[in-house]
Amino acid sequence: MEGSCVVSDGGHPYIPKELHLPGYVHGSISMPYVVSVFSFFTLLIVSLTWIFSGRPPKNKKVDRLLMCWWVFTGLTHLIVEGYFVVTPEFYKDNTGFYLADLWKEYSKGDSRYVGRDAGVLSVEALTSVFAGPASLLAVYAIAAGKSYSHILQFGISVGQLYGVGIYYMTALLEGDNFSTSRLYYYAYYIRANVSWIVVPLIIVIRSWKYTCVAFQGRVDKRD
Amino acid sequence: MEGSCVVSDGGHPYIPKELHLPGYVHGSISMPYVVSVFSFFTLLIVSLTWIFSGRPPKNKKVDRLLMCWWVFTGLTHLIVEGYFVVTPEFYKDNTGFYLADLWKEYSKGDSRYVGRDAGVLSVEALTSVFAGPASLLAVYAIAAGKSYSHILQFGISVGQLYGVGIYYMTALLEGDNFSTSRLYYYAYYIRANVSWIVVPLIIVIRSWKYTCVAFQGRVDKRD
Repeated sequence: MEGSCVVSDGGHPYIPKELHLPGYVHGSISMPYVVSVFSFFTLLIVSLTWIFSGRPPKNKKVDRLLMCWWVFTGLTHLIVEGYFVVTPEFYKDNTGFYLADLWKEYSKGDSRYVGRDAGVLSVEALTSVFAGPASLLAVYAIAAGKSYSHILQFGISVGQLYGVGIYYMTALLEGDNFSTSRLYYYAYYIRANVSWIVVPLIIVIRSWKYTCVAFQGRVDKRD
Repeated sequence: MEGSCVVSDGGHPYIPKELHLPGYVHGSISMPYVVSVFSFFTLLIVSLTWIFSGRPPKNKKVDRLLMCWWVFTGLTHLIVEGYFVVTPEFYKDNTGFYLADLWKEYSKGDSRYVGRDAGVLSVEALTSVFAGPASLLAVYAIAAGKSYSHILQFGISVGQLYGVGIYYMTALLEGDNFSTSRLYYYAYYIRANVSWIVVPLIIVIRSWKYTCVAFQGRVDKRD
């Protein structure tokens, strides 16, 4: 917390400074650039999903919004988090590859990423392997009006909330001192994860309600 | 890591031997005793649930079996795992309290319990706080034929599977060397957790199917 830059192995900027990262190569991009590129692709993907989902006139706005969310979260899980899971030594990358730089940058908010913490890696592995493909399936399920649409969305959202729960609890229990500065703590560690609390919570409540109604309809029908 | 037998504080039996447990008091009970008491109470609770759930003639056998499972897993989450969560220093217990002895014994299969590993503690905290009460609610939901019965059971089961996933993955990533011997590894670390893979998996599939049927019924009705 002294704010001075101790040159450890590779001279990395992360906290704790004792983190051993031999062969560390500084990221070649700045925070505004990382955020801009991520925002640009998010906007592009969400816009495309919004436009294409509007073609069939039967699609309601709320369903189109949900499809946008599932495309966005699915691709984030698969590509961004998937890259992290399969690339233990992204911090050595010297090619300026965007995803390596993104994780070098995010690790300033939570060094457990660059430090390959077992808890963080486990959550990310489960998320990219299960929630990633399942989220894209949810897009199809909503578009095609599948009968498993709500329970699928509910299941992924419960998993996302569980993942975020583990993510923050393990950090707190281990001292909550993995951030290079207050700025990175709030901008990355807190801010970047808020969506995966708020949206899953809304979907859990929504799909729960719809499922109850479906079962009530079924009971009514039988009586 | 030299493999020599270092007598650490309290002379505990756990692996890694370097685990620092000042004030450790040996458990006063043996493996057969721990397992017998746990089995006895499980059998008692399951039998009582089976008997009482058989009173209303409308209750189907499969629903009664599910109620037995939810009572068992709910009380295990609340009492056994809840005790672990709120008792960081159970290894110092010298009163012969059963739950302290149970966790001293289980830690021979996975010393991350006695060592208060952040990942294990996070999973256990989420499990005892959320899955515990929710499991008992599931008993009521099944008994009362509530419309949220399936989505509730599905949600808890997804959480249980996620928890087991994190539990094993973090252990593997951290070297999978937390067991005093092969016996404890298989008897506690593997065997004791198998139920929380098999049963939740069955319930996830079952409730998914029922929910699909409920939504299909709803769609049919609307057409």
